[in-house]
Amino acid sequence: MGGLRVRSVLVTGANRGIGLGLVRHLLGLPNPPEWVFAACRDPKGQRAQELQNLASKHPNLVIVPLEVTEPASIKAAAASVGERLKNSGLNLLINNAGISHYKSFDSNTQEDMAQVYATNTIGPLLLSQAFLPLLKKAAQGSPGSGLSCSKAAIINMSSYAGSIQDIYLWEYGQAISYRCSKAALNMLTKCQSLGYREHGILCAAFHPGWVQTDMGSSAEMKPPVTVDESVGGMLKVISSLSEKDTGTFLDWEGKVLPW
Amino acid sequence: MGGLRVRSVLVTGANRGIGLGLVRHLLGLPNPPEWVFAACRDPKGQRAQELQNLASKHPNLVIVPLEVTEPASIKAAAASVGERLKNSGLNLLINNAGISHYKSFDSNTQEDMAQVYATNTIGPLLLSQAFLPLLKKAAQGSPGSGLSCSKAAIINMSSYAGSIQDIYLWEYGQAISYRCSKAALNMLTKCQSLGYREHGILCAAFHPGWVQTDMGSSAEMKPPVTVDESVGGMLKVISSLSEKDTGTFLDWEGKVLPW
Repeated sequence: MGGLRVRSVLVTGANRGIGLGLVRHLLGLPNPPEWVFAACRDPKGQRAQELQNLASKHPNLVIVPLEVTEPASIKAAAASVGERLKNSGLNLLINNAGISHYKSFDSNTQEDMAQVYATNTIGPLLLSQAFLPLLKKAAQGSPGSGLSCSKAAIINMSSYAGSIQDIYLWEYGQAISYRCSKAALNMLTKCQSLGYREHGILCAAFHPGWVQTDMGSSAEMKPPVTVDESVGGMLKVISSLSEKDTGTFLDWEGKVLPW
Repeated sequence: MGGLRVRSVLVTGANRGIGLGLVRHLLGLPNPPEWVFAACRDPKGQRAQELQNLASKHPNLVIVPLEVTEPASIKAAAASVGERLKNSGLNLLINNAGISHYKSFDSNTQEDMAQVYATNTIGPLLLSQAFLPLLKKAAQGSPGSGLSCSKAAIINMSSYAGSIQDIYLWEYGQAISYRCSKAALNMLTKCQSLGYREHGILCAAFHPGWVQTDMGSSAEMKPPVTVDESVGGMLKVISSLSEKDTGTFLDWEGKVLPW
């Protein structure tokens, strides 16, 4: 294995939780990426303070403003990343930004459903479309014929809660809007794997574990997995992915999950 | 089996295709329902002509105006159905209304994705919420402890194209917005089966087959299944469903499909 080696990576929702953890771990790799693009809504805001601190120490970290529900913002982000990368492509796009509503079954409104889908499902589709030229360029510029995340890949941060088969943690929250958006994201991932294979781009969906983040935690329950464990595990798994893994749904320890 | 026996049923998207076929078959059953509610956007319009003709011959057919993307329209439909049913409930809600965009992978826009999800996924959620009191009433008023469609049930018209495992007919169309919406509808169905079991309501998702309708047909290809075959098959399967089938994904011949 020897750890992940990628030249460039972009992480959305990078200012906190799992996104911030991914950025920290990427910067701390034995062979860190030449470019780590950390996308978040408000790079200058209070909630991006930790990213700003990291950027002051790591010249390879670039904070990119991005609102994943706004097509114009996505296009601007792709253009700015493309400029930085000059003639090389983007190896790894991690669609991590996501939201949830923990509402009971019958209190979910049309707006809740639409808003969560816009962020968790449509956002990753639009991001992948906008960054496709850069991902293709990375694939074309990498040696070898197989697929891998050091060549070109889209990683969609899904959730085991999106498994229709297992309906993970139903007893802790029905979260219909979230579950539906993640099942749809899993479908998107599978379709992307079929559509982008010919371009040399690997696509996979991840369940990060039930992680100690603002989103995962509740007053009653401390989740079992730390951000470090989740992120360390996922990057290890990501480094090991090959042709046979495209289009799969994996947890942070590499276990294949049912759709 | 002996065919389906329900006192009342509501079908959305009932003015053409599979919806119209369901209404015809229900009216033609040896023991037809006391009430068949046929919901469509514009009951007085040209596209509802066949429903109007049927209604002139069948006093048990009631055409109900319904726009599944408008919560106020859904509430009004539930109120009007409730008035007709007086003190009895609704046995069977068939969420059949659906749309599709046959766009290539990278031409899908934010609007396409949001519009298809609003109709195909959020619509069935809102319908089920609005009709829940009538479905509960039907379950409470029916003898026996098990689940069945003659007691109380929600049938969501999904599609094998929503199977993440199998990605049915990928070679005929990527239809990402449609596939994502149907995977999410399958998730909704599974969640409904868990949430509504205690109320005595059976929930299942159906693949109607690749059917000769406006939606299913293209210039190049005539689908293999007729509306009559699809609808006749589904009603036979629906009549046979019991406790063990709630939360499953079935085709028009009763075969269980993978998520």
